[in-house]
Amino acid sequence: MNRKIILHLICVIAGVTGLAILLSGGVSFLMKDRLNDSITLSLTGLILFLSALCGGLLTRTKSTAERQFGFREGFAIVALGWLVVSITGSLPFIVTADMHWYDALFETASGFSTTDASVIDSTLTLRNGSSLPNGVESLPYGVLFWRSLTNWLGGMGIVVLTIAILPLLNIGGQTLFNAETTGVKSSDSKIAPRIASSAKILWLLYLGMTAVQVVFLLLGGMPFFDSICHSFGTIATGGFSTKQNSIAYYNSAYIDTVITIFMFLAGCNFLLHIRLFSGKFLAFWKDEEFRIYLYILLFATTVITLYLTFSSTITDPVAKVPLYHNFWNSLRIASFQCVSIMTSTGFSTGDYCSWPTVTGIILFLLMFPGGCGGSTSGGLKCVRGILLFKHSVTEVRRCIFPHLIPDVRLNGVRLENNVIQRTLGFAILYFCIFLVFACLISLLCPMAEMDFATALSASLSCLSNIGPGFGNIGPSYSFGWITPAAKVLLSFEMIVGRLELFTILVLFLPSFWKK
Amino acid sequence: MNRKIILHLICVIAGVTGLAILLSGGVSFLMKDRLNDSITLSLTGLILFLSALCGGLLTRTKSTAERQFGFREGFAIVALGWLVVSITGSLPFIVTADMHWYDALFETASGFSTTDASVIDSTLTLRNGSSLPNGVESLPYGVLFWRSLTNWLGGMGIVVLTIAILPLLNIGGQTLFNAETTGVKSSDSKIAPRIASSAKILWLLYLGMTAVQVVFLLLGGMPFFDSICHSFGTIATGGFSTKQNSIAYYNSAYIDTVITIFMFLAGCNFLLHIRLFSGKFLAFWKDEEFRIYLYILLFATTVITLYLTFSSTITDPVAKVPLYHNFWNSLRIASFQCVSIMTSTGFSTGDYCSWPTVTGIILFLLMFPGGCGGSTSGGLKCVRGILLFKHSVTEVRRCIFPHLIPDVRLNGVRLENNVIQRTLGFAILYFCIFLVFACLISLLCPMAEMDFATALSASLSCLSNIGPGFGNIGPSYSFGWITPAAKVLLSFEMIVGRLELFTILVLFLPSFWKK
Repeated sequence: MNRKIILHLICVIAGVTGLAILLSGGVSFLMKDRLNDSITLSLTGLILFLSALCGGLLTRTKSTAERQFGFREGFAIVALGWLVVSITGSLPFIVTADMHWYDALFETASGFSTTDASVIDSTLTLRNGSSLPNGVESLPYGVLFWRSLTNWLGGMGIVVLTIAILPLLNIGGQTLFNAETTGVKSSDSKIAPRIASSAKILWLLYLGMTAVQVVFLLLGGMPFFDSICHSFGTIATGGFSTKQNSIAYYNSAYIDTVITIFMFLAGCNFLLHIRLFSGKFLAFWKDEEFRIYLYILLFATTVITLYLTFSSTITDPVAKVPLYHNFWNSLRIASFQCVSIMTSTGFSTGDYCSWPTVTGIILFLLMFPGGCGGSTSGGLKCVRGILLFKHSVTEVRRCIFPHLIPDVRLNGVRLENNVIQRTLGFAILYFCIFLVFACLISLLCPMAEMDFATALSASLSCLSNIGPGFGNIGPSYSFGWITPAAKVLLSFEMIVGRLELFTILVLFLPSFWKK
Repeated sequence: MNRKIILHLICVIAGVTGLAILLSGGVSFLMKDRLNDSITLSLTGLILFLSALCGGLLTRTKSTAERQFGFREGFAIVALGWLVVSITGSLPFIVTADMHWYDALFETASGFSTTDASVIDSTLTLRNGSSLPNGVESLPYGVLFWRSLTNWLGGMGIVVLTIAILPLLNIGGQTLFNAETTGVKSSDSKIAPRIASSAKILWLLYLGMTAVQVVFLLLGGMPFFDSICHSFGTIATGGFSTKQNSIAYYNSAYIDTVITIFMFLAGCNFLLHIRLFSGKFLAFWKDEEFRIYLYILLFATTVITLYLTFSSTITDPVAKVPLYHNFWNSLRIASFQCVSIMTSTGFSTGDYCSWPTVTGIILFLLMFPGGCGGSTSGGLKCVRGILLFKHSVTEVRRCIFPHLIPDVRLNGVRLENNVIQRTLGFAILYFCIFLVFACLISLLCPMAEMDFATALSASLSCLSNIGPGFGNIGPSYSFGWITPAAKVLLSFEMIVGRLELFTILVLFLPSFWKK
């Protein structure tokens, strides 16, 4: 294993994190936080950057031979890189907000993995024994900005950065694409050789979408700072908000609609956006995955809207909107929540835990497929769901036609057996990890709070990078009450989910570490 | 499709059901039920038998050509046969216990599928508006016997009967074995050609095990009638009891132990029992599936025992045993419950819903694998779990060794790609059906009672043919409060689970019905 190049690239990643913290320090000065906080934040960023710079220089590669690396190094860099940003990125929370290391780690892992599970609420106990009286709103602006920035960087940032920086260092990013890309290997055969240029295009698109959303939110009367933070959270399908009540704070149908639309767009395969911009106007409609993604959302939204409209007893405790017999309110809240959960964003405008059980179960089901492959969303991804469904139907058909040759197609292209087997393996591992972690965290938490629904949904929510769950981690609650050990475990689960399981699991193979 | 032979065999199956009801009528006379009940029960059996006999004679096959049938007829007979026994078998509950048709259907489907989910408790409203004041104990002996008999016949009975009767009719049972056998196709290549004789041996073994258990239970002081009914429920991994409090009624460590051991044996592959009797004393130990089955049970029992021993607050409300700081009580209850849930029997000696969440989650996890393939238990079966695990590990390995050729072995024999794909398809369908039915039943039931844990566990419990679940269908409750529509749906889910999904799902393929 080429350890030097791994260390070098880890240092580069840590350096970028340092610069991002420094940027948050700048924002802190601009937003007139307490001077003490702004200086601490900036200094933290600077020290991290300088340390990483030293490390980077010490591990500099001199020859082309030293820059060579293969699968193993690729996996090690991605996995370790994610671990390093989660640890170094937690410094602002520790030094500025006085949070415990495990709370800070959870919050950062949650940010970079675009999960949006937060430990912060008004009951969280800080290191100095005090609490945050207004929840996240008690945090300095610099820390709030950093929190949303981890979302944004995590969502696509680190992926794109790694792909965009590595080619500059004359290292083939292609080996990494295999480990890092979300979703099933793209059927667009041209994407692989053009990774470096694609990364730049994706990055521009990402930046562009964020900017457009900021403008739309400003038009709705949202303050500039909040618009930026919420756009970061939306495009990354992260979901960190600057308000304790999330988007419900604004109580604006316009803002809800804008965010719903942008969450929906962020849950689409980004390659489709690129195709659209290159003049292929039917790109979306021609894509099988997009159609299924759209149908599922339409179906779930319709059912939940009708259910809320005709339910006689519901007044949402968060949105304070009487849902009873009001079609438009129901539609607004149902569409927002469906898109938010399915794209794994996790913003909320209502407390779906107080809705009828069936709507909860539908939202729970939406957590499994998630958004499209090639997006920033979490979960299994729709494309995998389609594959699994088609494979299952094929197997049922083979009961009566035993000599049938399997022919599972996606967008008309027949899939190789290898791809299907990998996808099936992924799904099985996904279910197993979901269940095992639910078991482990219920082992580590007090029984009264960690009930059945809470344990299951906490595990699924972290694995699928969604954020809120059901029971005591519903949209009205935070993860703050969970024990430190369970927080560390869930942080790990978020990273496992974000890196599509395999990237982390290979590290547990003894053969991975052998020569 | 050869409809005549299908109808003929359905009549044979209905006739056997009629005879079994007649037998229950006889038991009713012997146990001195109200004469009215005994006569009604016997007459029901007789009329059913005679109608089936007429039907059977009318659809008699005359030539060898007419007796030919293939895959489709096989599937149709199994699926329709199970439906017919569930409907005709519900007659005793309707005519003698005055139950609604949907309650009776649920109870019968639950019995024949060895699920043991019961609608009967003291709050169930009967057709005449009254209730059963002592729950199941208010039922006439004849009906109680019939209830346990459905378990016994269902567990292996119908399977074995179909395999044993069909060859007598000169029809190759081999085509059916594919549809009806539980678990992955046996690695014992000799079993397929010897199906007819194997069926007889299995049937003898089944009868023998039941008889031995009756003797052991009698020695523990259990009345003769109860011993027979509980043995029926144990060997079939069914779990219907003649007491409202299930096995907790007897509060006897001896009886608990006997039933635990027999449930464990009933959860093993029956081919292993046969091998043991034919002198292969290491048969069990040499079998990979059995070892895993044993390890999982030992692990779960150990964890739950320790947890109960060191939990400071638990007094079990059903067993009335203080579990706190008492190792032996904890071991007794934990081992019983683990074996009962994992083998999908569903007897209970304690209310695990009042235990710590982690023990609940462990029991929930045990519902997935179930017992061994080739046993009467439900669930995915251990052997499938092993396959899924090995396949997943192989896929992780292939991340770093892309050219690795998959080599998944069971008992040292390499499995064909086809078998693995079928198993993976099965697992995916299993998870999907579990989630979709949880969604449907929560749609059909009042929100207050059908909470998250109840809906999920009801669906899983019925699909895996276990019986009790969590929340409002825990061991202290019944399914009686569920709405009629949800009862019918769950009855269907039990049959789908019992017939290993594919058998029912093929019926939904349009191509199944085409020529």
